Amino acid sequence: MKGFFQVQTPDQLYKKLDRFTPLSLEEVTIEDSLHRVLYEDVISPINLPEFRRSTVDGFALKAKDTYGASENNPAILQFVGEIPMGQVSDIEVREGEAIKVATGGMVPKGADAVQMVEFTECIDSYSLHVFKTLSPLENVIQIGEDVKAGEAVLHKGHLIRPQDIGLMAGIGKTDFSVFRRPRVAIISSGDEIVPIENIPSPGEVRDINRHTIVSMVKEIGGIPLFLGIAKDRFNDLKEKIELGLRESDMVVITGGSSVGTLDLTVEVLQVFPGTEILAHGVSIRPGKPTLLADIDGKPFLGLPGHPVSAMVIFHFFGKPILKILSGLSREVIWHQIKVKAKASRNIPSVPGREDYVRVKLEEKDGTLWAHPIFGKSGAISNLVHANGLIRIGMNEEGLEEGEEAEVTLL
Amino acid sequence: MKGFFQVQTPDQLYKKLDRFTPLSLEEVTIEDSLHRVLYEDVISPINLPEFRRSTVDGFALKAKDTYGASENNPAILQFVGEIPMGQVSDIEVREGEAIKVATGGMVPKGADAVQMVEFTECIDSYSLHVFKTLSPLENVIQIGEDVKAGEAVLHKGHLIRPQDIGLMAGIGKTDFSVFRRPRVAIISSGDEIVPIENIPSPGEVRDINRHTIVSMVKEIGGIPLFLGIAKDRFNDLKEKIELGLRESDMVVITGGSSVGTLDLTVEVLQVFPGTEILAHGVSIRPGKPTLLADIDGKPFLGLPGHPVSAMVIFHFFGKPILKILSGLSREVIWHQIKVKAKASRNIPSVPGREDYVRVKLEEKDGTLWAHPIFGKSGAISNLVHANGLIRIGMNEEGLEEGEEAEVTLL
Repeated sequence: MKGFFQVQTPDQLYKKLDRFTPLSLEEVTIEDSLHRVLYEDVISPINLPEFRRSTVDGFALKAKDTYGASENNPAILQFVGEIPMGQVSDIEVREGEAIKVATGGMVPKGADAVQMVEFTECIDSYSLHVFKTLSPLENVIQIGEDVKAGEAVLHKGHLIRPQDIGLMAGIGKTDFSVFRRPRVAIISSGDEIVPIENIPSPGEVRDINRHTIVSMVKEIGGIPLFLGIAKDRFNDLKEKIELGLRESDMVVITGGSSVGTLDLTVEVLQVFPGTEILAHGVSIRPGKPTLLADIDGKPFLGLPGHPVSAMVIFHFFGKPILKILSGLSREVIWHQIKVKAKASRNIPSVPGREDYVRVKLEEKDGTLWAHPIFGKSGAISNLVHANGLIRIGMNEEGLEEGEEAEVTLL
Repeated sequence: MKGFFQVQTPDQLYKKLDRFTPLSLEEVTIEDSLHRVLYEDVISPINLPEFRRSTVDGFALKAKDTYGASENNPAILQFVGEIPMGQVSDIEVREGEAIKVATGGMVPKGADAVQMVEFTECIDSYSLHVFKTLSPLENVIQIGEDVKAGEAVLHKGHLIRPQDIGLMAGIGKTDFSVFRRPRVAIISSGDEIVPIENIPSPGEVRDINRHTIVSMVKEIGGIPLFLGIAKDRFNDLKEKIELGLRESDMVVITGGSSVGTLDLTVEVLQVFPGTEILAHGVSIRPGKPTLLADIDGKPFLGLPGHPVSAMVIFHFFGKPILKILSGLSREVIWHQIKVKAKASRNIPSVPGREDYVRVKLEEKDGTLWAHPIFGKSGAISNLVHANGLIRIGMNEEGLEEGEEAEVTLL
């Protein structure tokens, strides 16, 4: 059992990720800000809206002039003009008067509500019938009702979504500081691994992991740097890891964690000053042979060589590490919306490790069912047929048909 | 009510989207294939694996030699060698013999199972004790067990995820045809709209919609082309829409659908041959003033000017149209995994339209709660505080506290 001297539970490992710290900042314009992480709190310099706006097409008036109005007994107001969009008007609405405004248009002085055009009728060029009563402030958005000047509208560590970009556009914020995107060095290892362009000789296999891990790094907003395939030899591993540490913010090696290679990798890591092995084996399936180290502050993750195990481990450990480096707030990293589904048949498991079984989710009559896809962890086609991983906890012996459990979407 | 002559329910509108058809193809390499949509079925030219592989580190042997073995009564085998990774060996395992293999290594002739190293002990250089019985095929992945030669492993219309890239890497597929990404012309309209770099004069507002819709197009894999802000004048609208139709696969205009401008836009569309208005108002809130047209096969979507309404409508109608143009299979477009949450308080609604109320989701003791964020649809900050939209059906008067409903994640 040499090598498995620090087997950790997933939760023990998660607690150790706190030691890694976010990267530095860079400036971006609003056009390049989608899915970046804010490095600064965004304070609004202005009120939004900056003037009272109508939320409907209709007539600005004094609400009290409509009190008691109904379909059979309309209030009769005097139509005194119109405010064109984008323009200011000095007209003031007085008692018994109404001014036409469009959605988003400025509500003129004197008015305290806007009646929707649907509930009015123009009798002639001067008279307007209003068929429904209004309360003050109805259909009017007040100055600062959306955002107040001086308010912190977005916070450091926030992942920028389209609506956040909208808010920044609204307050005129065109440039801001975001966290730098993490550069991730990716190394494949194993004497049997060949580039996918090659025709493998018997005993050789194509380098699947390069392509899956590169894609997963892209999905999470990182910049992948593939450093090539290392042979299972001390010097080859050492050179590639050294290059990775120099050129990037995190090093990921696949296939370097099966018992033999794992030991060799651990040996290589000792060469680098400030190396601390955080986990050497994790009680999770698929994926037990996982290596996590801190090399002078940089995370090093050794993934199993089996493509499915490598993807699952990268999903559960690589992604949170990248999110930490990306500067995301703790809340976003750890509190994700989880989907729950019912097992469509019994799913056995062995207690003592967290088991993630590949499932195909299907919604039927409002219930979400998880159909397990059984297969050996080397079979990449299983992951292709799956769209989720259902969780069986550390101390459970499996799921019974109909039992509900958490599913991570793939 | 001129203009609202074709108010549709969301379901009526969805049925009409079938008329739009996917774009043409282009070639990409595997490196550029993430999140693209396959234009071809992918047929595997090979078996995967191409040779029998071990799924564990251990010893290849004949399963029957282990029958009856236990902790106290090990089977004793003769250790006859090792197969190095990536190499072929002519050694054949005979009765009573065992050969060392690593995870992923070739299982030698004669062996039909692999015992995990954990359940063995090397007594000396020649003798191996095996403490556990094995079934034939245990820990061995057979030729073609993952993928069979000639099998269609992925289908036209499939969105390419990291695991799909892994499968293509495994079968040596490095180049393939995908659907072209849709180019989307985006026009802002309204006399009050100014670029966000400007300081708005009283009555003017910054162009939020340009930035939210551009970002949403990017998120769904489209290529946004912003064509500028059109004034509410026939010629300005016409020129920009004409340019959009020439340069792109879909035209989206925001703010062009409030009652006045909506009529003007409809008038402009008549200029273009082959225009068919599909909807002029949708019974959905927020977002009623929505315009959908088919201009000689190209979709034209007129969104409300209010930023929140524009985003909601683009989410529910713009995204499905873009998915159709992108060539995604119908299954992916319409059968998404939905999240359900319980209303944390009563949420009122008016029957006769589908109501989407902005909510903040929170998980508490295993239950997902939706806290409604009330506010006028012009308030972009509401969408920023929200991470979902809870659905209140056409014929419902609202949700009661604790009632469960579908939530679209934002």
